[in-house]
Amino acid sequence: MYEVNETHDPNLQSWVESANDPNTDFPIQNLPFCIFASAKNSDMPRVGIPIGDKVIDLWGCYGSGLIEAETRAAAAAGSESTLNKLAGEKSSYTALRRRLSKLLSTDASDADRKILGEHMVEAAECSMFVPSSIGDYTDFYCSIYHATNVGSMFRPDNPLMPNYKYIPIGYHGRASSIVVSGTDVRRPHGQNRSDAEKPPVFIPCKNLDYEMELGFFVGKGNEMGEPIDIANAEDHIFGVCLVNDWSARDIQAWEYQPLGPFLSKSFATTISPYVVTMEALAPFRTPAFERDADDPQPLEYLNDEQNQKFGGLDINLEVYIQTEKMRNENIEPHMLSRSNPKDLYWTIGQMLTHHASNGCNLQTGDLMASGTVSGKEKNECGCLLELTWRGTEPIDLPSGEQRRFLEDGDEVIMKGYCERDGFRRIGLGTCRGRILPAGV
Amino acid sequence: MYEVNETHDPNLQSWVESANDPNTDFPIQNLPFCIFASAKNSDMPRVGIPIGDKVIDLWGCYGSGLIEAETRAAAAAGSESTLNKLAGEKSSYTALRRRLSKLLSTDASDADRKILGEHMVEAAECSMFVPSSIGDYTDFYCSIYHATNVGSMFRPDNPLMPNYKYIPIGYHGRASSIVVSGTDVRRPHGQNRSDAEKPPVFIPCKNLDYEMELGFFVGKGNEMGEPIDIANAEDHIFGVCLVNDWSARDIQAWEYQPLGPFLSKSFATTISPYVVTMEALAPFRTPAFERDADDPQPLEYLNDEQNQKFGGLDINLEVYIQTEKMRNENIEPHMLSRSNPKDLYWTIGQMLTHHASNGCNLQTGDLMASGTVSGKEKNECGCLLELTWRGTEPIDLPSGEQRRFLEDGDEVIMKGYCERDGFRRIGLGTCRGRILPAGV
Repeated sequence: MYEVNETHDPNLQSWVESANDPNTDFPIQNLPFCIFASAKNSDMPRVGIPIGDKVIDLWGCYGSGLIEAETRAAAAAGSESTLNKLAGEKSSYTALRRRLSKLLSTDASDADRKILGEHMVEAAECSMFVPSSIGDYTDFYCSIYHATNVGSMFRPDNPLMPNYKYIPIGYHGRASSIVVSGTDVRRPHGQNRSDAEKPPVFIPCKNLDYEMELGFFVGKGNEMGEPIDIANAEDHIFGVCLVNDWSARDIQAWEYQPLGPFLSKSFATTISPYVVTMEALAPFRTPAFERDADDPQPLEYLNDEQNQKFGGLDINLEVYIQTEKMRNENIEPHMLSRSNPKDLYWTIGQMLTHHASNGCNLQTGDLMASGTVSGKEKNECGCLLELTWRGTEPIDLPSGEQRRFLEDGDEVIMKGYCERDGFRRIGLGTCRGRILPAGV
Repeated sequence: MYEVNETHDPNLQSWVESANDPNTDFPIQNLPFCIFASAKNSDMPRVGIPIGDKVIDLWGCYGSGLIEAETRAAAAAGSESTLNKLAGEKSSYTALRRRLSKLLSTDASDADRKILGEHMVEAAECSMFVPSSIGDYTDFYCSIYHATNVGSMFRPDNPLMPNYKYIPIGYHGRASSIVVSGTDVRRPHGQNRSDAEKPPVFIPCKNLDYEMELGFFVGKGNEMGEPIDIANAEDHIFGVCLVNDWSARDIQAWEYQPLGPFLSKSFATTISPYVVTMEALAPFRTPAFERDADDPQPLEYLNDEQNQKFGGLDINLEVYIQTEKMRNENIEPHMLSRSNPKDLYWTIGQMLTHHASNGCNLQTGDLMASGTVSGKEKNECGCLLELTWRGTEPIDLPSGEQRRFLEDGDEVIMKGYCERDGFRRIGLGTCRGRILPAGV
């Protein structure tokens, strides 16, 4: 499943001109899935495949004769308003991706181009939706740099818990408040006890933050009581997306013991609308985190040779901020950090296998996220809590403003893309959200 | 909404004889909802209303002429395989309950009895299902006795966190592994580090436990960003059920810091199949927990006069165990504890309002649970962790066996019922589950 094949050929060009732009997230080598609506199907969102600045309407193609036998199951799921049905059909959606790679290439016949062209819409005219019906959402905590930084703020004498190097630490998140990129996020109220001498007060969040995470969707699920072997973990992963795990730090600090974060996270989680499949990511696999010599090896149920060799993901994750003032003054978004999930202590395969190791049943469409992706360096920190060291080291913005945490009107913009010598750049798209003032 | 009405009249008798049995959970004063299948609809579970030892097939009644105008929306939801649609129609399901109270009473006409009788099946011949499609499951921690007991074991110097008396502490649970009463539960594997001198090992859980909780279902939801006023909290609650929050204590102790319980809980949660409506519970409301004079009052957003007067629930919760040996020797289940949610530090209205206070959108069908319901006394402890004080004080069973934690083959049986002078006893039914050995 880590093999590179003809769909990754960097010389492959598409007859969709915009797909050949070196900066597009969606060249012919990507072909992710999404749920979209355009003027033609405004009240019936359905499955799309972005290519350059277009989106292919899969359901539209279904009756066209372009869809061959083994791709039919995936294409038949094209009329669904979520990707769940398609995500459960791995052999079929893989065959579909390969078929589309041929139909979109410059080798395609004029006849095929004509038919496919009739089922393409302009991406700019589409609305995008949360791509799957998410039964359960699980958030991990797999960046050792993030865990060490945060730990040293909240528990200076005990920054990294003794379980960290044995367990891919995670917790259940709130599924109902997952929204798609572009949705405004209202600043939450919550209990704040920043002054330990006084009782807590219920006020709008003062320390609002984002967290740059990598998300992944469950493809094939497992039955309750039947764990997933680490060697097969990636068979159960459909693809990845960007996740902004909005975090209310003042609420979190007061509420999180002893059962973990709750309302500090559940007001909103924003995800990018595209699911980039594991096949598209094959050229960008890296070895699992290189542990220190005195670190323990993963326990046997989390240890697999292939996973150790190829379980990592080399994806550039960038976070930008644009304040209201910057928008008004036409100042471009300002980059806050650049990090990479190849630096995560645990692979996504290990996260998934650990999750099911107690027999917990994972379901098609479930979302898991990595936790904040931070690297070793200061400019690789995936949240403001770390970047400003709990607000003590404000960031200077090109507008002359400073930020400790997010202010009303701030927009956080996350991007992800893969680059590697000898391969075509592919992107994960954008995950953005703007902060609205707290309600009354 | 706390008012007693004619449906609670203790003198009301039903022409369904078994409903007049003083020990039935389902007299005419109860009329809960469930999802059932019988021989007639074995492949199409639908909405039922238990009465005595019968279950009314609501969908069957729909076309019968028994269902009047204002009850139609609820009855039309009778063909659904979950209660979600019905749970969102409060005025209609309330009207339906009142209509059924008349139709089932000894005042009902022969004609009505005949029609209704045609749409009743024997409860003993029915299969029951998880009653709602649970988008999110949230587990609270609202027994101060339980929190203090557990805290003193895990954090002897800091048993009750400083936030406890301000926040209804809760965390997100796993929705996918919620199963209905009667489902076997496989002992989970997990990481165990009972010997701190050695690395953890991945083995079958050694300290398997149950937790006796009260669950409640969300009726009407709220939009994201729009909190729910404490004065209206109960408008959003459909009804209650019994919850067994199975817990793997050894896994929990090693994994739970810093983000809370995860795999120690997510292998299974068992619920009773009946949703007892808030209207049926009206006679059994109690004042909220009486706080000590030096305890803080709830913050304003959690403080409401009606809620303080009537927000509590007086429900007898009983836990029994029957081991394999006891079954083989025909020894009746042995009672382990009896506790009552009237002893919870927070009301279910406060839990719900707190949950939505950050703008988190609750959805119809969501499940919330109270956390282990323990009382002040030893025999009121709602889990083995407390009853055996972390296994140090084993329990003697009538079979001559002892238990520190659950063994394979043990069945845990939970019961709930309300009794009060001047009112008819109503029950929540039974929540049972048997432990299967760990997989290989």
